[in-house]
Amino acid sequence: MKAIKIDHIGIVVRDAKERLKLYRDFLGLKVEKIEELPERGLKVYFIQIGETRFELLEPLSESSEITKFLETRGEGIHHIAVNITNIEEAVKLAKENGFKPLSEEPKKGAGGTKVLFLHPKTTGGVLLELVEGEHK
Amino acid sequence: MKAIKIDHIGIVVRDAKERLKLYRDFLGLKVEKIEELPERGLKVYFIQIGETRFELLEPLSESSEITKFLETRGEGIHHIAVNITNIEEAVKLAKENGFKPLSEEPKKGAGGTKVLFLHPKTTGGVLLELVEGEHK
Repeated sequence: MKAIKIDHIGIVVRDAKERLKLYRDFLGLKVEKIEELPERGLKVYFIQIGETRFELLEPLSESSEITKFLETRGEGIHHIAVNITNIEEAVKLAKENGFKPLSEEPKKGAGGTKVLFLHPKTTGGVLLELVEGEHK
Repeated sequence: MKAIKIDHIGIVVRDAKERLKLYRDFLGLKVEKIEELPERGLKVYFIQIGETRFELLEPLSESSEITKFLETRGEGIHHIAVNITNIEEAVKLAKENGFKPLSEEPKKGAGGTKVLFLHPKTTGGVLLELVEGEHK
């Protein structure tokens, strides 16, 4: 198992329109796609930068996945996602080495990927998402 | 002014040796360089991933730049650095658009670069470092 590159950096925002002043207008980056994920209470703005991207995560409702994060930490960096070669091997190695997965098995990610999150308490405060496959 | 790519992601660690179990041993990444910066109280581990890198920031002393961060937030993601085309233009545009620079002028960064930090209160909780030039 090997990490290939940063897949994306997830950033929690209250109001994406306001934050696009930074990422789109000031940094000159392009919003490639906007997706609503009502089952997770999220609206996601995909912003390409080099071989990776920022994902701005905006709450759609008060029961969103990021509501608690917004209440306790406020806006800011939420997670780092890394493309890896083999997620089944990653699950096994993570458990063997004390990096606690947030789910027993990899989950279906966006665009046909397989993803697994590692608990920040076991990785030095970084919520790390492992991604097998490229987002299409 | 335009952002080109992520230059690096700065991650505060208490004990880099412990965290290398994640970045080097588990993710299979290479530590390209280790630098001591006594004037900033830091030891920095440069870990390449794709076109960008992780920089693990470890305190050398209790008066390090990251001591307060460690005390209040604990280990975790400290900042994101973005390569940009023109830092003089970035300073001007940042001030015009309400993104507050942490210094009046760009500072000398590592490897002949010029850098400027933007205050997280003005960027949605993200400590953003703008970097002109490539780290050599």
